[in-house]
Amino acid sequence: MTKACFDVLGIGNAIVDVLAKTEDDFLVAEGLHKGSMNLIDTERAEYLYNRMGPAIEASGGSAGNTVFGLASLGASTAFFGKVADDQLGEIFGHDMRSLGAHFECAPLIGGVPTARSMILISPDGERTMNTYLGAAVELTEADIDEEIVSKSAITYMEGYLWDKENAKNAFRKAARVAHQAGRKVSITLSDSFCVDRFRSEFLELLRTGQVDIVFANEPEVKALYQTADRGTALNALRADTKLSAVTLGAEGSVAISGNETFHVPACQVRELVDTTGAGDLYAAGFLYGITHDMGLERSATLGNFAAAEVIQHIGPRPEHDMRQAAEQAGLL
Amino acid sequence: MTKACFDVLGIGNAIVDVLAKTEDDFLVAEGLHKGSMNLIDTERAEYLYNRMGPAIEASGGSAGNTVFGLASLGASTAFFGKVADDQLGEIFGHDMRSLGAHFECAPLIGGVPTARSMILISPDGERTMNTYLGAAVELTEADIDEEIVSKSAITYMEGYLWDKENAKNAFRKAARVAHQAGRKVSITLSDSFCVDRFRSEFLELLRTGQVDIVFANEPEVKALYQTADRGTALNALRADTKLSAVTLGAEGSVAISGNETFHVPACQVRELVDTTGAGDLYAAGFLYGITHDMGLERSATLGNFAAAEVIQHIGPRPEHDMRQAAEQAGLL
Repeated sequence: MTKACFDVLGIGNAIVDVLAKTEDDFLVAEGLHKGSMNLIDTERAEYLYNRMGPAIEASGGSAGNTVFGLASLGASTAFFGKVADDQLGEIFGHDMRSLGAHFECAPLIGGVPTARSMILISPDGERTMNTYLGAAVELTEADIDEEIVSKSAITYMEGYLWDKENAKNAFRKAARVAHQAGRKVSITLSDSFCVDRFRSEFLELLRTGQVDIVFANEPEVKALYQTADRGTALNALRADTKLSAVTLGAEGSVAISGNETFHVPACQVRELVDTTGAGDLYAAGFLYGITHDMGLERSATLGNFAAAEVIQHIGPRPEHDMRQAAEQAGLL
Repeated sequence: MTKACFDVLGIGNAIVDVLAKTEDDFLVAEGLHKGSMNLIDTERAEYLYNRMGPAIEASGGSAGNTVFGLASLGASTAFFGKVADDQLGEIFGHDMRSLGAHFECAPLIGGVPTARSMILISPDGERTMNTYLGAAVELTEADIDEEIVSKSAITYMEGYLWDKENAKNAFRKAARVAHQAGRKVSITLSDSFCVDRFRSEFLELLRTGQVDIVFANEPEVKALYQTADRGTALNALRADTKLSAVTLGAEGSVAISGNETFHVPACQVRELVDTTGAGDLYAAGFLYGITHDMGLERSATLGNFAAAEVIQHIGPRPEHDMRQAAEQAGLL
């Protein structure tokens, strides 16, 4: 097997986030389940945008954030995701390439606009996402450049891709190509409601070995195994996959592989401002670690560190040079 | 004279900011004068955007930021500025209206895109702006809705408008209409290079009483009177205008009217992150004060308070509800 050109290839919905602070009352009034990701159509998008407060815009998307975080840590990265040929698409492409990530996915021309997610940030820092997928749903098998996949040590994909048939097929193709090239495949379960929608398919992916590394947060892994008990859920995950990493909010995270379990406490944060991107940046730190032979405990520590940065400001991606920050913290 | 419907009408370039951190070396390499505003064309915009780091987008524009800050403090506001009929224009309009500001300026259809300013933030928090004016330059006298002007207690305008003939004429018309209705006219000098370009015209505006209230920072007022001495500059300004407010960076600000001078120290900040919007938010706080009979000292204090909020995060507009924050601080 030749050496991988890319540490991580991310595949996901190419989304620009529209982030605004809100009061919890607004979520209740609009029937939004706090902490969840809701798929919305154009009409609903317009309705919510007219009612939400002043916002800032930032490139986002779960796997996109992870790839960005990896690039900021100094990893070599690539990304597949579909934007439109419009201003938001230009913004997404700029930000993805700005730290050196390979992003050459052809934009959609003359169709629907670039995806955006209206993210409402509650006073406690929790985010509730309302995503209009737009051009992102046009990601198909044709966008899976086999050469890039086979040159990537790990192909990392969002569970969110399961919401659309084309994207699901793209996921399956990428996983197949990666394994044929002797590479690893990783998935994040994305969202507990997403897990509810696709539980049996996600379990099949794990149990048939189509994915090697699983990322989840506690609600997602509990949803996957339909249990309220953390230990039960984690042990079920241990049995189903070779390597998994589960974030536990303020309790940090746990990395699980066979009989090994590493619980790493969370980094201290000065002020929790916005949890958007927390799981994505955790995955970035963890994936950096395991693609650079750092071992599970150090990888999880780096994941916690990257997550801590992104929750201390508004926006889904780090504001700091994460390599420099991690070096200063003695983690790299 | 009837009661004003709007405390402040702002007129300025309608701009979406593209904000990215940078190293000072980049500014030097690109020949950018740190702290300045540079007007750029499409080619230069593309060149810089390809070279600058990952960014976030936020509605901006000097007078736009001031109107937003005023709305956040609870003032009744309106804004005139030209966007295009595109995604960035939609963002600008949403953010302007989201706190209740009146913004009904017809967007430019089928022409150049909405203005954007690429703002490079140095490690010390200083910002250097590179502005592609796009649709903003299409603001003309026809956009000056006389009814709104005559119903606004203060019409506040950017010195930046002087860069384009049409906008300059719009400024003059608005000033004339405001005075005919017995209202006040205010200007911010915007930028020391802008002052250099239009010194004699700005002085004429002041000395002929076309403007009543002047905002400036120290470099701008020194540039206006071509002196390196602060006291000389401030006394010259005192002689030329009825009321002025000058920001002094870390030293706070000074309000000057006739023989009265109020120097108000700056609010303490935890961390200076990004000075973008500092002067604009100072003007917001000060204008709120003088339109609500708070007196010069309290008005300047509120200006310093609003400026302190905006320099502690990336972006040109407050992230907090400024009315609530000011009330908690005992300023309202």
